Amino acid sequence: MELVKKFREMIKKMKAYQYALTIIGWDSNTEAPRNTFKRRSEMSGYLSKELFGLRTSKEFQDTVNELYAKIDNLDDLLQREVKKAKKELDKIVNIPEDEFVDYMRLINDSQIIWEDAKENDDYESFKPNLKKIIEYNRKFALYYNDQANPYDTMLDDFEEGMTTKEYDHFFNTLKEDLVPFVKEIVKKSNDAYNDLRSKRYPKEKQREFSQYLLDEFAFNRKSGLLKESVHPFTWNTSPEDVRLTTKYMENYIFSSIYSTIHELGHATYEQQISTDLDDTLLNGGTSMGIHESQSRFYENNIGRSLAFWETHFDKFKELFPEQTKGYKAEDMFKASNHVEASLIRIEADELTYPIHIMLRYDIERMMFNGKVDVDTLPKVWNDLIEEYLGVRPKNNVEGVLQDVHWSGGMLGYFPTYALGSAYSAQIYYAMKDELDIEQLIKDHNIKEINLWLKDRMHQYGSAKTPKELIEMISGEAFNPDYYVRYLKEKYSKIYN
Amino acid sequence: MELVKKFREMIKKMKAYQYALTIIGWDSNTEAPRNTFKRRSEMSGYLSKELFGLRTSKEFQDTVNELYAKIDNLDDLLQREVKKAKKELDKIVNIPEDEFVDYMRLINDSQIIWEDAKENDDYESFKPNLKKIIEYNRKFALYYNDQANPYDTMLDDFEEGMTTKEYDHFFNTLKEDLVPFVKEIVKKSNDAYNDLRSKRYPKEKQREFSQYLLDEFAFNRKSGLLKESVHPFTWNTSPEDVRLTTKYMENYIFSSIYSTIHELGHATYEQQISTDLDDTLLNGGTSMGIHESQSRFYENNIGRSLAFWETHFDKFKELFPEQTKGYKAEDMFKASNHVEASLIRIEADELTYPIHIMLRYDIERMMFNGKVDVDTLPKVWNDLIEEYLGVRPKNNVEGVLQDVHWSGGMLGYFPTYALGSAYSAQIYYAMKDELDIEQLIKDHNIKEINLWLKDRMHQYGSAKTPKELIEMISGEAFNPDYYVRYLKEKYSKIYN
Repeated sequence: MELVKKFREMIKKMKAYQYALTIIGWDSNTEAPRNTFKRRSEMSGYLSKELFGLRTSKEFQDTVNELYAKIDNLDDLLQREVKKAKKELDKIVNIPEDEFVDYMRLINDSQIIWEDAKENDDYESFKPNLKKIIEYNRKFALYYNDQANPYDTMLDDFEEGMTTKEYDHFFNTLKEDLVPFVKEIVKKSNDAYNDLRSKRYPKEKQREFSQYLLDEFAFNRKSGLLKESVHPFTWNTSPEDVRLTTKYMENYIFSSIYSTIHELGHATYEQQISTDLDDTLLNGGTSMGIHESQSRFYENNIGRSLAFWETHFDKFKELFPEQTKGYKAEDMFKASNHVEASLIRIEADELTYPIHIMLRYDIERMMFNGKVDVDTLPKVWNDLIEEYLGVRPKNNVEGVLQDVHWSGGMLGYFPTYALGSAYSAQIYYAMKDELDIEQLIKDHNIKEINLWLKDRMHQYGSAKTPKELIEMISGEAFNPDYYVRYLKEKYSKIYN
Repeated sequence: MELVKKFREMIKKMKAYQYALTIIGWDSNTEAPRNTFKRRSEMSGYLSKELFGLRTSKEFQDTVNELYAKIDNLDDLLQREVKKAKKELDKIVNIPEDEFVDYMRLINDSQIIWEDAKENDDYESFKPNLKKIIEYNRKFALYYNDQANPYDTMLDDFEEGMTTKEYDHFFNTLKEDLVPFVKEIVKKSNDAYNDLRSKRYPKEKQREFSQYLLDEFAFNRKSGLLKESVHPFTWNTSPEDVRLTTKYMENYIFSSIYSTIHELGHATYEQQISTDLDDTLLNGGTSMGIHESQSRFYENNIGRSLAFWETHFDKFKELFPEQTKGYKAEDMFKASNHVEASLIRIEADELTYPIHIMLRYDIERMMFNGKVDVDTLPKVWNDLIEEYLGVRPKNNVEGVLQDVHWSGGMLGYFPTYALGSAYSAQIYYAMKDELDIEQLIKDHNIKEINLWLKDRMHQYGSAKTPKELIEMISGEAFNPDYYVRYLKEKYSKIYN
């Protein structure tokens, strides 16, 4: 069909620009010389504009709309692709151009204003921008669908099909079943392994251990590589080119270990997607939440297990004989599962992490139903974290200013972080029915786990929705009970 | 002026594509995972096509032609830029499209055929392609200018303004004045320092020495970086982003040292070009020969001097205490200036190197005046190298198949390698009149040499022609006598 061919060709063009921007971004984040900043933003700005032009061109719109009109005649995969393209277009093209340009400028400015505000603990200077960002997001959501709750529209941007109804149920479960448990565990927390965690571990040896982990997790080195960056991330141009970064901190060994394992989860997902999808719009991981479920599964369900440390402690000792003197595998296991009520999300442990997300969900929810505004926001934040974890920020840097997301216009993103962990628990129990996970870890056979994930999830890329995947894997819809069960089982054992 | 604005905008667009392709190429040559090959060539193929489309578009042609019609009204810099654009267009647009496409395919195929031919010492399999490449190049040169000797047109592609007349004079000088001297020195050559050269030098320590050299040569790290690749090279997207590579061989220490210094010569040139030229067509080094003069100046005039080794031997000893036991600075100097009659160009030393180039010039000259064809080529090659250096290839891998250039359609390129060294000698004597080069090296003050080069040459980028630069620096036209004098002075001293 002529129309499909045209659709394919236009997508291919877009992919070339996307490819260039990905490589330029990778370069920028991992090694580009400092002084190139201005030139790069000029050059990649031009390429981004070209790409945006292609994505929103009249020609592409017409093609997508024509295909959409005949959607029932298309095969399943193409249907999904056209629907995805149509939805993305509808979210952009209904926005008046001047508002869109204005919003882009706002987001651009807000990044720097937020950075300065965080630097100087000056929430007031960021407040007007935050207000505008919330307003624009509400407006844009209504342009797309004026019948829906705007926050629902935004949640769907990051996790297809998720709404406040489902998230409310999820976070209420956490509030009722998990928060009391967390409070109990936090009381039992102590500094027993502080020393082991914070000794000096030379970067060179940490690098060796991360490279060792790549092989242990059966990462395909012919189709990827590991580097360093300020904030660890994973980027890919195709399943045959998946790159991850980690961060080496000499006085905190778990930074590199768990960043590497976390990113390996993302990277393995991307490496195992079928290359048949390369030239389609369905070629990446299907959602933020599903992506995060893979990284969290690797990081927590595998990497923070007793079996993991029993298996890899010998290698670790070999690299760090001094630092590990007198310790055994179980100590590493406990040290890596240290629980603490803290204020900063990105430093939180596995158990308290979802509480930080719950707080953000509560607040975004209130932003959009009018129960909180930018004036009352800092106090509401501080009250909530105190209620949930018993700690209170002494300034806004420890509170409402800590995350970059809102300044970048990402409202509705946070919940996917907790959702990912909850998905990973549900996947964990489904996998456990079929595989002896613990034994596979002990046998240095994570490849088998990878293949299971490839078979059940990874290969499909975005060809399946998050809901379809969870249903296919576990035989039921998303159910937060698995997550609570998993955390309770694990931490009851560690903290008796 | 509206027309100039349009010209500027079109160039800016091209630069965005060029930028992307440079970063993608850099990635490809230094770290990209192996399996990405296919995807990358597809994606960058599309971007190259877009760029070629812009460069040869009717719109750009019209703009350039209109500006060219009013050339006398333009300022000097713009005149030079428009002439350059006009010339580049004239070299392409007069070629019938089907011939151009056919030639591109030929070049593409020839790469692999040449690789295989070299692998299997099978000149016959490469011969038909080589024949076609020569024919196409002759034809294309005549499309551009049917009054000129086609080889002259091709020489000009790589070194603006150079013709067979000048090159004949240059290489005749070498033939008469240098060849007898080289033969004498070669006879005196011995293996005295073989041991020092070929001991095992661990890569990690070599890396440290290369990083040390970057600082010693006052390389601006905020605007560049050093990495590794199979073949060392320097690439840049602007003077604020200049990247070089080197190659570490454990059993040949001089590989990394002199690759690093050589590339630093290229890199310093690019870093010191005025950023005012960034958005023009005059933003890079002005020619292959001038570029090579900078890398050779660094490599040979500085890096292979006695003063260099007297200054840096302490650092070298510190890194390689075992390997240097019993040796002194002068030994390193002599070891790095070892002369030998050899067959492979890229392994040749400073003194015999131009002889290898002379041979290639002779042969290309004969290709285009009909005195050699692809059938007689291997024998002519072998006879000539035997005549010049007294060694004879035992197969075509050691002879006519050794270089990649011809398979890539680069005919007329080779002479610039020798020209670069000759330029560097002429620059050396001009600099010596004003600076105490030896003392600056000893004072760890190469920055001063860089600044002299920036002032006299680098800042201008391509705004001056090679001939203008040489004239400006030395007060006279290119004169090969300086080169012969320099080599004779240096090697007479070393070999008494």
